[in-house]
Amino acid sequence: MECSGESRALFPGSVKALLDSVEAFLFDCDGVIWKGDKLIEGVPQTLEMLRARGKKIVFVTNNSTKSRKQYAKKFHSLGLVVSEDEIFSSSFAAAMFLKTTDFPREKKVYVIGEEGILEELQLAGFTCLGGPEDGDKRAQLKPNCLFEHDATVGAVVVGLDQYINYYKLQYGTLCIRENPGCLYIATNRDAVGHMTDLQEWPGAGCIVGAICGSTKKEPIVVGKPSTFMMDFLLQKFQLPTSKMCMVGDRLDTDILFGQNAGCKTLLVFTGVTTLSDLQDPLNNIHPDYYTSKVSDIFELLGQ
Amino acid sequence: MECSGESRALFPGSVKALLDSVEAFLFDCDGVIWKGDKLIEGVPQTLEMLRARGKKIVFVTNNSTKSRKQYAKKFHSLGLVVSEDEIFSSSFAAAMFLKTTDFPREKKVYVIGEEGILEELQLAGFTCLGGPEDGDKRAQLKPNCLFEHDATVGAVVVGLDQYINYYKLQYGTLCIRENPGCLYIATNRDAVGHMTDLQEWPGAGCIVGAICGSTKKEPIVVGKPSTFMMDFLLQKFQLPTSKMCMVGDRLDTDILFGQNAGCKTLLVFTGVTTLSDLQDPLNNIHPDYYTSKVSDIFELLGQ
Repeated sequence: MECSGESRALFPGSVKALLDSVEAFLFDCDGVIWKGDKLIEGVPQTLEMLRARGKKIVFVTNNSTKSRKQYAKKFHSLGLVVSEDEIFSSSFAAAMFLKTTDFPREKKVYVIGEEGILEELQLAGFTCLGGPEDGDKRAQLKPNCLFEHDATVGAVVVGLDQYINYYKLQYGTLCIRENPGCLYIATNRDAVGHMTDLQEWPGAGCIVGAICGSTKKEPIVVGKPSTFMMDFLLQKFQLPTSKMCMVGDRLDTDILFGQNAGCKTLLVFTGVTTLSDLQDPLNNIHPDYYTSKVSDIFELLGQ
Repeated sequence: MECSGESRALFPGSVKALLDSVEAFLFDCDGVIWKGDKLIEGVPQTLEMLRARGKKIVFVTNNSTKSRKQYAKKFHSLGLVVSEDEIFSSSFAAAMFLKTTDFPREKKVYVIGEEGILEELQLAGFTCLGGPEDGDKRAQLKPNCLFEHDATVGAVVVGLDQYINYYKLQYGTLCIRENPGCLYIATNRDAVGHMTDLQEWPGAGCIVGAICGSTKKEPIVVGKPSTFMMDFLLQKFQLPTSKMCMVGDRLDTDILFGQNAGCKTLLVFTGVTTLSDLQDPLNNIHPDYYTSKVSDIFELLGQ
């Protein structure tokens, strides 16, 4: 591999330097740990080696369709033992954003998204509307028919929603346009993602784009590359970000997230980004390191 | 009414000057001629007076859900006699765009939108996929399940679609991302519209925003405020645009469309824009004239 931009390929020497200088590894999941429903080769040994060396491990994922609890189950089903508090999903970030900004408990949250967002919001004590429950509802475009929405909705949270429909779009749009001060929160804005092993599908960026299009407003983004989640990690670890390394497969979310926060960054090619993408003259996001797959960290050490 | 920006309210004197200098009136429909399914007061007399004075009349609408034929029916149902060739809808504009740019006949067009787009495309001789037919389809996010799309799709046309679903979003996204050279055409980008009498609903801008979010591409817009439709009007009338007046209820589509083309412009307050919106210091789109309703043209003449 050639050097691309300011990035360097991992070699045995640089892996040693990386492990010596980093105390916490932040991993993206999809395209790094797994792809769709398949574990990526060598991941268990690599995580084991990192834990054996006393490194802290966190999984930071933009996928909002699952809650941390559901994620822990997915890890277990793939043979990885991961605790809920090692998982930071954008669904959790949305709930934490409302909590830390003292969102009034008497106000409701309308959700355009899946189960994960609802579960995290409810766990944090918020009252939710929408989500999967509105998946089969139809908007009736009839004369003299008024589409009613709840005036006590104070925030609309938008994430990936494979059951998106015009009803939900109208509900969310009405809340944002008509309820005074209503917040518009996006879990993330990934254009596409590997929802299945074989191909990419529209991501939260698609659904968020729809609401931007109807409201002409920009959302508060709580997932990567926004640094909102980093505040929690900093509080949790009490470590300077220079001692953290973000490992991901996306330049514009993972690597940018790591760089925005001052972390070291490592790009892997098991997900959406290729070496050619990295080398593209139009690309201006350059990780500190890049390598084929996460397990190179393990293999290059010669263990 | 006070003067706002560079705009002037219509008065008997200015109406006379307007009628003397203008030979063709371009009317937006929704919020100008009708609101939802209700004809706006005084419209028939006004159109009749304009026709009696030999003025040419055209209806230019961004609503893509109907074809020109379906529009003519709507006019008739409201008691207005309008011929199909007086109607320029964004559904027709999409078909004309493909025709004038010599879109290859052997390629297909995928439609995220309603019946009007399909009808106009088929009338122009193009082969279409999608539209209402895909309204009940569900995308299956299962491992090892490949969502197949037609590799001969060479254009995706996106308009308002009240039956939007994740299947259509994935289909359109795949075509734009994976079919080499595939065009991405938007009928228009209106954020909201009066789909019913009582309230506004997400417009084509919502659906277009979704596809922008998943493809990270910007569409070719054929409806207002793009001047694409104006080329047809110019060819049809052989009139300088300075002898045309665009009458509409929206600053960022109708009035901007008129101004982009060099027409005179008249804003009416029977639709989405209020006098306060016009006066807002943040507004930088100022029509030549504004008035309460279309029939002021008739009434101010004292006829």
